[in-house]
Amino acid sequence: MVTDRKVILYIAMSLDGYIAGLDDDLGFLSNVEKDGEDYGYHDFTSAVDTVIMGRKTFDKVLSMGLGNPHQDKELLVITRNSRPSLSNEKYYTGSLKDLIKSLKAKDGKHIYCDGGAEIVHELLKNKLLDEMIISVIPILLGDGVRLFKDKRPEQKMVLVKSTPFDTGLLQLHYRFL
Amino acid sequence: MVTDRKVILYIAMSLDGYIAGLDDDLGFLSNVEKDGEDYGYHDFTSAVDTVIMGRKTFDKVLSMGLGNPHQDKELLVITRNSRPSLSNEKYYTGSLKDLIKSLKAKDGKHIYCDGGAEIVHELLKNKLLDEMIISVIPILLGDGVRLFKDKRPEQKMVLVKSTPFDTGLLQLHYRFL
Repeated sequence: MVTDRKVILYIAMSLDGYIAGLDDDLGFLSNVEKDGEDYGYHDFTSAVDTVIMGRKTFDKVLSMGLGNPHQDKELLVITRNSRPSLSNEKYYTGSLKDLIKSLKAKDGKHIYCDGGAEIVHELLKNKLLDEMIISVIPILLGDGVRLFKDKRPEQKMVLVKSTPFDTGLLQLHYRFL
Repeated sequence: MVTDRKVILYIAMSLDGYIAGLDDDLGFLSNVEKDGEDYGYHDFTSAVDTVIMGRKTFDKVLSMGLGNPHQDKELLVITRNSRPSLSNEKYYTGSLKDLIKSLKAKDGKHIYCDGGAEIVHELLKNKLLDEMIISVIPILLGDGVRLFKDKRPEQKMVLVKSTPFDTGLLQLHYRFL
């Protein structure tokens, strides 16, 4: 059976293109925190049953003390060196291309890429992403970790939707051609 | 008399943050060319009487064979080495800070920054921009000349407006706080 599982990047960046400041600082995200506003995150994750993320990003999330946010999903943590699993995460040391191919060969909901920059770069270099939902935070960070590194292939996109929120966050939804 | 002249960057960039590809290639802009659609450029330039741009960008524009697009404005070309003027442009070798200060001390319409990346970087480093109107082209260029270089100060912004066009171009309008 042919399935239509899409690999979707869902991420926040500053207007100048950083997903974190210097020293991986995520403090800028607090500029758009608002009670009762999740910017569509719940709806998005409801359409997802698999999450892939980089090992550094996974560790960063755990270090924030709120636990593993993807306990109800198949969670694949991409790493060069495997290690024992502490909850539902599976460490994956193979190629992203093979991983996406095998995930897409199975039935399932969409596949959520939860960062970070290294994984995004690998996915883009190999044209493995189907869609991107980018929440643009109204700030110039000035320096930090870029979402888009240099030396990738050109790729055309379709603007599916753009949604401004009253906090100034602007959510962009693009589909790759 | 106190005037309210604003320094406004009006520029196009790819979704991944480049204002030109490798070798200053501007070919990606043709993806959003459409008869009769100027993306608000005429209205914007009507509110402007002064243009500042970098020397390299000015030469690039001239090299495209369509002539100097700012003949009806006060045109200040920022350069390290002055040279004879060929039309209405004035070469300016001083500091951008002093230039903006003196322009704002005079009555007038808004001041349009027409790039390029070096001038934008200097303006941002010195917090000299008041607003930015960025037309985001639905493409990842993958490499090229970045609009936002590293090593700038953090600056918060207000999302004034976002306007999607049916070509996929998304025009962002931000004001600096």
